[in-house]
Amino acid sequence: MREIIDDIFDIEGSVLITGVLVGGKQVDIAISEAGTIVGIDEKNGARDAVEAEIVVDGSESIAIPGLVNTHTHAAMTLLRGYADDMPLQDWLTQKIWPLEAHLTGDDVYWGTKLACLEMIRSGTTAFNDMYFFMDRAAEATDEMGIRGTFAHGFIDLSMEEKREAEIKATETLVSHIKGLGNPRLTAAVGPHAVYTVSPDGLSWCAGYAKEQDIGIHIHVSETEKEVVDCVAQYGKRPPALLDECGCLTPRTVAAHCCWLDEADCRLFAERGAHASHNPASNMKLAVGRAMPYHHLKDAGANVCLGTDGCASNNNLDMLEEMKIAALLQKFSWNTQTLLPAGEAIGIATAGGARALGIGPGTLTVGAPADIVLIDRRKACTTPLHNTDSNLAYACNGSAVHTVLCSGRFVMYDRVVPGEAAILKGAAQAAAALVQRAEEAE
Amino acid sequence: MREIIDDIFDIEGSVLITGVLVGGKQVDIAISEAGTIVGIDEKNGARDAVEAEIVVDGSESIAIPGLVNTHTHAAMTLLRGYADDMPLQDWLTQKIWPLEAHLTGDDVYWGTKLACLEMIRSGTTAFNDMYFFMDRAAEATDEMGIRGTFAHGFIDLSMEEKREAEIKATETLVSHIKGLGNPRLTAAVGPHAVYTVSPDGLSWCAGYAKEQDIGIHIHVSETEKEVVDCVAQYGKRPPALLDECGCLTPRTVAAHCCWLDEADCRLFAERGAHASHNPASNMKLAVGRAMPYHHLKDAGANVCLGTDGCASNNNLDMLEEMKIAALLQKFSWNTQTLLPAGEAIGIATAGGARALGIGPGTLTVGAPADIVLIDRRKACTTPLHNTDSNLAYACNGSAVHTVLCSGRFVMYDRVVPGEAAILKGAAQAAAALVQRAEEAE
Repeated sequence: MREIIDDIFDIEGSVLITGVLVGGKQVDIAISEAGTIVGIDEKNGARDAVEAEIVVDGSESIAIPGLVNTHTHAAMTLLRGYADDMPLQDWLTQKIWPLEAHLTGDDVYWGTKLACLEMIRSGTTAFNDMYFFMDRAAEATDEMGIRGTFAHGFIDLSMEEKREAEIKATETLVSHIKGLGNPRLTAAVGPHAVYTVSPDGLSWCAGYAKEQDIGIHIHVSETEKEVVDCVAQYGKRPPALLDECGCLTPRTVAAHCCWLDEADCRLFAERGAHASHNPASNMKLAVGRAMPYHHLKDAGANVCLGTDGCASNNNLDMLEEMKIAALLQKFSWNTQTLLPAGEAIGIATAGGARALGIGPGTLTVGAPADIVLIDRRKACTTPLHNTDSNLAYACNGSAVHTVLCSGRFVMYDRVVPGEAAILKGAAQAAAALVQRAEEAE
Repeated sequence: MREIIDDIFDIEGSVLITGVLVGGKQVDIAISEAGTIVGIDEKNGARDAVEAEIVVDGSESIAIPGLVNTHTHAAMTLLRGYADDMPLQDWLTQKIWPLEAHLTGDDVYWGTKLACLEMIRSGTTAFNDMYFFMDRAAEATDEMGIRGTFAHGFIDLSMEEKREAEIKATETLVSHIKGLGNPRLTAAVGPHAVYTVSPDGLSWCAGYAKEQDIGIHIHVSETEKEVVDCVAQYGKRPPALLDECGCLTPRTVAAHCCWLDEADCRLFAERGAHASHNPASNMKLAVGRAMPYHHLKDAGANVCLGTDGCASNNNLDMLEEMKIAALLQKFSWNTQTLLPAGEAIGIATAGGARALGIGPGTLTVGAPADIVLIDRRKACTTPLHNTDSNLAYACNGSAVHTVLCSGRFVMYDRVVPGEAAILKGAAQAAAALVQRAEEAE
């Protein structure tokens, strides 16, 4: 694994990973040219499944399924560190929104390139994105080789004119993404939240998502105020309102979900909606309550994991997010056994894949070959009494050395093609953005 | 910085770091042969302070003071991932204690070597350790080149015979460490906690620490039960009991401090005792309450940071711990502005240095040259709107590329001498330890 094969990022061929640790066992993984896992075997059986063009020695690695970041605003990498540690309203109105008012499509392109670079480096192969200029986000993601689901952030503030504009923007984006015909890139509808989108807007989103056979990406019950205001205005809690508008579906990813009560959790389970846990953001913004993972689990609802955007995290490292999730659940609900290591990995992989409809999110025959190889020769993987524990509690994304998405290498032995140019382009875009905003003041 | 100078780890000479970013400004840092910062200047003035034997180009780096881990049990790296996600009592009695019963001095040596490797890689240059076989921990730390303060974990369970043995073990260790005459290695007295050490034991520890002019390292108010039991048994809360026994001093480092009340915080401030925040451990073990950082700050008490041991964290990454601290404080005390990025870095550097008595913990003339260089060409440092924010919220220890302790290189361009042998030795020791424990069952 020390020698870089010059053209490894260009080869569209079958791959064999030999002797890699999966769930405590040393296995071979065979990947077809089409990017699917076609063999996985302890006793070298997988070696016969393909005539591999590329053979990777996995003997010093642990393999896990690609991590799935189910809630982010990728291009907000450009705002990383621009404003922190402020009261929420001041932070939004004095810092984040004024800067975002100057965002261009090029900024979103560079911000998403940086986000994809960071995600690849830390083992994420798919993400659920909501922001502006999403055609440019999709362009960046296409170039980087991972999977993205793109939603235009739909905000109508109960104004019909605004709603019409958002409908048009949503339709344009969905049509654009579908037109690309790239199986790694999918569109979703992105109603922002119950406090920024009218019931009419929510109903349109639900109907359009159904018609287009695409997902819904929305913020739900992030703060207590959101719940209290929703009950005051509509006489029901956010999940019930969303359900009435048709927005709680098996293709809905609901971010945050901090203030769900037990009945909300049962409704999520009944509708098959997915709850995306975003613990770092929830802690940083002091939302006052952790997602009730135990109630969602008891109800049988699917829980997945996300980092939120870099203004409120401030990174996209899903291994770090896994640890913060496992710690926050234990601490918040006063239960040392809640969200154990294996489940933390599960919500970051299988839970996310299920939420975004990209296969089982496991290393099994028939699954997309979204595979992350983690270095066994690091302090965080030494000793290795229990792989799940090392990954969930001791490692962060820097332990990842090689990543495949749909059977193609997007990082090999810590090399991501074009990294220096991405860092430079994103840094320049961020500096210019701040300068434009300051000049306009 | 890309070429390794072959003998850089052996040179005992003066060093000049040029053009490195410190607190938002590009400066030169001059370091004397004796390991002290002798010049730091924006306008190249520092270049005249030494005839540098080694010149390091810092133009692609951020410099911060060495991180100080004020509460750990370093050799517990060997137990990393051995048991997690269990109820506290079962975890201790069924897993941790039975394994520790088989620990040898060699195990502590290898566990501490692994801990030092991990600490160096993530920018820690000093740590406050409490465990067994501490002569071997000191030996490992000496070899690795960083600073350690070593306390024998003193537990008498109110039994006189046990107390006598602990007194002897403490005296032997202190005499041994002092005999080494190594300024990087210091001894402390380590009364475990008020529920494991009798008032007689505590009083002896206080008197001996005073006599020997050394520190005290103790667990304080980690759980509500500890406080309730202490009040029931002694009619006072743990800090008051410790104060009565003479254990609250300007050289006392109190770990955890989760359940301090406002009066406890004022007592800490009055006595000059240091409160070590250990947020990851507190969350993982679900202790139910975060250290009241705001009360300690209001009272004027010094707060520092620590990771606790790897059985309850499960790593020693102080940059990660900084983030978890900043997030937990905001979340727990419902205040978005609490423990901002700059203060999080402060508790991990200056706060810790003050607690362990190793200089100001800042990059200033006269301070020990414990210096960490962080890579500016990474996603976590791109963009760089505010260095403090990038370090506290976006980066983890993997962004560190070069570390000096007392002016000597302990990592240069991500190379730590002997790394592969340490990983191998520690892995073997951990496996053998588990085997011995299982065979004894």
